[in-house]
Amino acid sequence: MVRPTHGGNVSWAAGLVGCSPSAILDFSASINPLGTPKSAIDAIQAHLPRLRDYPDPNYSQVRSMLAQIHQLSPDWILPGNGSAELLTWACWDLAELDQTMLFVPAFGDYFRALNAFGAKIQRVPIEANLEGSRSSGLLLNNPHNPTGKLFDRGLIQEQLDQFALVVVDEAFMDFLPPDQSLISEIERYPNLVILRSLTKFYALPGLRFGYAIAHPDRIKTWQQRRDPWSVNTLAEVAAEAVLQDYEFQKQTFDWLNAARPQLFEELKAIGGLSPLPGVANYFLVRSERSVTQLQKQLLEHDKILIRDCLSFAELGDRYFRIAIRLPAENQRLIDGLTSCLLTTIS
Amino acid sequence: MVRPTHGGNVSWAAGLVGCSPSAILDFSASINPLGTPKSAIDAIQAHLPRLRDYPDPNYSQVRSMLAQIHQLSPDWILPGNGSAELLTWACWDLAELDQTMLFVPAFGDYFRALNAFGAKIQRVPIEANLEGSRSSGLLLNNPHNPTGKLFDRGLIQEQLDQFALVVVDEAFMDFLPPDQSLISEIERYPNLVILRSLTKFYALPGLRFGYAIAHPDRIKTWQQRRDPWSVNTLAEVAAEAVLQDYEFQKQTFDWLNAARPQLFEELKAIGGLSPLPGVANYFLVRSERSVTQLQKQLLEHDKILIRDCLSFAELGDRYFRIAIRLPAENQRLIDGLTSCLLTTIS
Repeated sequence: MVRPTHGGNVSWAAGLVGCSPSAILDFSASINPLGTPKSAIDAIQAHLPRLRDYPDPNYSQVRSMLAQIHQLSPDWILPGNGSAELLTWACWDLAELDQTMLFVPAFGDYFRALNAFGAKIQRVPIEANLEGSRSSGLLLNNPHNPTGKLFDRGLIQEQLDQFALVVVDEAFMDFLPPDQSLISEIERYPNLVILRSLTKFYALPGLRFGYAIAHPDRIKTWQQRRDPWSVNTLAEVAAEAVLQDYEFQKQTFDWLNAARPQLFEELKAIGGLSPLPGVANYFLVRSERSVTQLQKQLLEHDKILIRDCLSFAELGDRYFRIAIRLPAENQRLIDGLTSCLLTTIS
Repeated sequence: MVRPTHGGNVSWAAGLVGCSPSAILDFSASINPLGTPKSAIDAIQAHLPRLRDYPDPNYSQVRSMLAQIHQLSPDWILPGNGSAELLTWACWDLAELDQTMLFVPAFGDYFRALNAFGAKIQRVPIEANLEGSRSSGLLLNNPHNPTGKLFDRGLIQEQLDQFALVVVDEAFMDFLPPDQSLISEIERYPNLVILRSLTKFYALPGLRFGYAIAHPDRIKTWQQRRDPWSVNTLAEVAAEAVLQDYEFQKQTFDWLNAARPQLFEELKAIGGLSPLPGVANYFLVRSERSVTQLQKQLLEHDKILIRDCLSFAELGDRYFRIAIRLPAENQRLIDGLTSCLLTTIS
């Protein structure tokens, strides 16, 4: 089987070691380990009879709810079939500019969407100083994936005065305090697009729900491009449920605020590994040894899957990314890593 | 509220007469009235725990099943987020040609998708003789919506020798015997695209599942354009379940083969109405009186929603479309129409 270029491909890992996918402890996809909230499952079950009707093409109900949460008018918000769908339309807009600057290492799907529309991509190391121009676009994620770095809000606002269009993918922003998001600035910048996802925080990658926040004119254009029923009804009702699930949100912060510093310290203590300080629910780790080999060993000995970084051209075989999981699972990872790194690789 | 341009917008109708959407008897969307098969609901419920994983970006399982059904290799098949998503990519291909011929009256979403990519649209009355060219494309649905007309397979094959690209939307083809589909010819024509949908036959508009059948090179191009997880996991498992639900398929044909001729005769017997003979699960009906008024009366008196044809420029206020429903429901429609047409409209 072909090596996956995105985390979470557990069937690939299971195939490699000949076990069932459910036997794999997956650190490769940065998904909330508390699992899908019960509120989402309950909402889906309650609304199964609605599958025989078309979704409301305006998605009025969930848009109103998101509008209220973000203190915006609903016409600034567009729900999508995962934020990956909305990335496609954002990259169409970017491709109309002379070039798009992209912080690297970058999430692989950015290249897919930019290339689909023939965008001219200019790779910029994430530590570099940007030179924007009114004929260029900028695409970045904040917090950055895979490094976990948080870009300063003020720094992005400076770029908004430089670039024709700035697309900020906030797929992991829910894991941070709300004052880090750029959403509160959106009404000042018609050249800003923010992409959000429910996938990671609410453990819903299989259901597909994300949303874009942008000027109403842009939202209208995107709606004319795409088909009228892009979000399935079950995703819509689950979104409405989890956005009001304050108990799940609190549990997530309780878990993450304790687990993140602990796992960071434990990774740092392992010889040959250097985790980068990350603000989200994952860490990028530099390894002195080949990650391809380490990944294979962990899979074979411990059925643990880590995310290699071969798909990030700038990182290659000396980096891996891991999700922060529940304390006992993190311990299994630390034990596995420690024992692999003590073993000499032939 | 804005008048909807597609059937099935029950909330609009309910808003007009001030009742709950579930109180409306909906003849406007041509959905199987047997409802969503139990096999689909069971499959969804059994796989809810999989929502925490990403879908398999290759959708290998459902592709294999569809491949087996259509006696093709899986790389000729691409599942989509409803056939509406796949129409978007098909229209991108069409837009690269000098012009696209479109049989009119045409499904409104064809204009959306063609216009999104700036295609030059040439409207052709469905009864006209086509003059194809190697720099033109052709987009049609078979059976045709809203007339219910079936294009002869041989006629479409002739067009395949004329046109650079022919896209055949077979969204309603499941309601016909399998020998009417062009799928068995696909391997002979790299310039043929067939779009299929589970929405209508399996009453699943809320879940979003369709598939395209086309040459593997084209399928690969489309996969590079769109995001990797366009089909949600629940749609994938429901599709696998219903494609094997032979009992539901048989029940559907038993119902339709009896209900279609009966409803046709009853419509024909009403003075002022002339139904067009249709091969699918709906009829287009010509009315001597204003349909806007008839639609309003039916809603107010009987809570029955019929599909006006104002969104089809060539039809206007003298045509409406109705789905074929269960015998007792069809009787309610006939009674409602009869009583409305006996009433003088002020």
